[in-house]
Amino acid sequence: MSTENAAEFRWPVRVYYEDTDAAGLVYYANYLKFFERCRTEWLRSIGYEQRAIGHDEQAAFVVAKLQVDYIRPARLDDALTITATVTEQKGATLLFAQRAVCVAPDVEHLLASAQVKIVCIHPQSLKPRPLPRGLLEAMRDTLSDTY
Amino acid sequence: MSTENAAEFRWPVRVYYEDTDAAGLVYYANYLKFFERCRTEWLRSIGYEQRAIGHDEQAAFVVAKLQVDYIRPARLDDALTITATVTEQKGATLLFAQRAVCVAPDVEHLLASAQVKIVCIHPQSLKPRPLPRGLLEAMRDTLSDTY
Amino acid sequence: MSTENAAEFRWPVRVYYEDTDAAGLVYYANYLKFFERCRTEWLRSIGYEQRAIGHDEQAAFVVAKLQVDYIRPARLDDALTITATVTEQKGATLLFAQRAVCVAPDVEHLLASAQVKIVCIHPQSLKPRPLPRGLLEAMRDTLSDTY
Amino acid sequence: MSTENAAEFRWPVRVYYEDTDAAGLVYYANYLKFFERCRTEWLRSIGYEQRAIGHDEQAAFVVAKLQVDYIRPARLDDALTITATVTEQKGATLLFAQRAVCVAPDVEHLLASAQVKIVCIHPQSLKPRPLPRGLLEAMRDTLSDTY
Repeated sequence: MSTENAAEFRWPVRVYYEDTDAAGLVYYANYLKFFERCRTEWLRSIGYEQRAIGHDEQAAFVVAKLQVDYIRPARLDDALTITATVTEQKGATLLFAQRAVCVAPDVEHLLASAQVKIVCIHPQSLKPRPLPRGLLEAMRDTLSDTY
Repeated sequence: MSTENAAEFRWPVRVYYEDTDAAGLVYYANYLKFFERCRTEWLRSIGYEQRAIGHDEQAAFVVAKLQVDYIRPARLDDALTITATVTEQKGATLLFAQRAVCVAPDVEHLLASAQVKIVCIHPQSLKPRPLPRGLLEAMRDTLSDTY
Repeated sequence: MSTENAAEFRWPVRVYYEDTDAAGLVYYANYLKFFERCRTEWLRSIGYEQRAIGHDEQAAFVVAKLQVDYIRPARLDDALTITATVTEQKGATLLFAQRAVCVAPDVEHLLASAQVKIVCIHPQSLKPRPLPRGLLEAMRDTLSDTY
Repeated sequence: MSTENAAEFRWPVRVYYEDTDAAGLVYYANYLKFFERCRTEWLRSIGYEQRAIGHDEQAAFVVAKLQVDYIRPARLDDALTITATVTEQKGATLLFAQRAVCVAPDVEHLLASAQVKIVCIHPQSLKPRPLPRGLLEAMRDTLSDTY
């Protein structure tokens, strides 16, 4: 990829009461929900849905490892943009770089950044399996559309 | 109001993994999150945000009572529409009728319906207080826009 | 049952950051989590676990209807007691009366009370089915132990 | 510390429906709730509560960075033990090593391990501040009790 943002997928998320805690800020675990919504919508944007991929392809995705840096807090009613970029794909594994940014009228603040390692598994055996071929092709098509 | 749906506010919600449980269905408490997102977006649609209303108007909203009927389950990836209709307003109290419907290509299935009683309180004392006058006017304007 | 509290099951719950929201109080949907933990522990106390009952008995439980009255708010670090009392059992249906109380050194405050209607279903068809016979017997044994 | 487990704090957590997702496993974000419950109970075990420390000491704790390795999945009804060990303390910062293990009758399985960096902040300014002196002393007392 030529630039960092080349294949970045973006998804808007609004902060509701359910996302906040008694400190008045978004609870730290809830960023993981936001990151997953964005990965799921990226998948949907290239033609795949989690439930269908489980039935039709005998494939499910689990998080094997993650790292999150929390930089600035988000608050109730904030309008966030969550991003997801596939930075590596190999065998059963997908690496994502993700960010949560707060979109103010004239500036974007980085709230959190994450590295997330996803492994494709069989839904029953929970054992790793290669990514479905169709999904790999859809990922390549998306990338070539971008350039 | 002349018909039941006259002032119905609608808000789309997608079902993600975070919303489901090991039965494969949306967890029953999470409909309350969906209902609250819809009420919050209704409020935003008439010009009010929860955080600002707390600071500027010394008003917050709490749920005093609710009743939910769960009719059909929702599943991962389902596209839902959540509705909110103010059915009564008196003093510090707002009554909402709400529904969660699943939007399939050619049909809508009712998943859950709820009655929710909201009370306006002072954020510090937690005591009931009348709804802010500006909010009442915005509610009336919305209704008159509708007819 | 001779008195209201005769077969009341009690389960302690601590309020953590995850349970609170930006108003500084326990978020209204999270009481439904507390109520369900208590029903699950009641079930475990009479010898049944949700996952095992699904496999061994082809039975799962869904909430069909609920009503909650929110009376006083709970806050971070509060020590709550959640109660569950079976008030009716008929066919596939169990009715529970539940309460959340805050246990202070010398007083108990009622925070919320609920009526919850549970229906026993087949995990695959999602259709109602009678409660497993063994469960019914365990429920009766518990009651007779109490008197 | 003479051994890795010397000052390990342990806290039991039961897996309920609320913790699981449609894959039948504990949702990845919910381990962060378990880890936080354990840190909060560790704090309580040395005499400090989150809400009181906010009022009395003008101190709150935020997660600045975390890394989680997900090794084996947990399921509904599993009995977990969550651990927390302070591995470093400097200025406003506490580092925790944490684990989630599944306690079967005769074996413990490691489900997830985490490194969590906590920063002590002023609740209003959200700026870092040194850990309260009393808390540091309580931490030292706990360690010396252990040896």
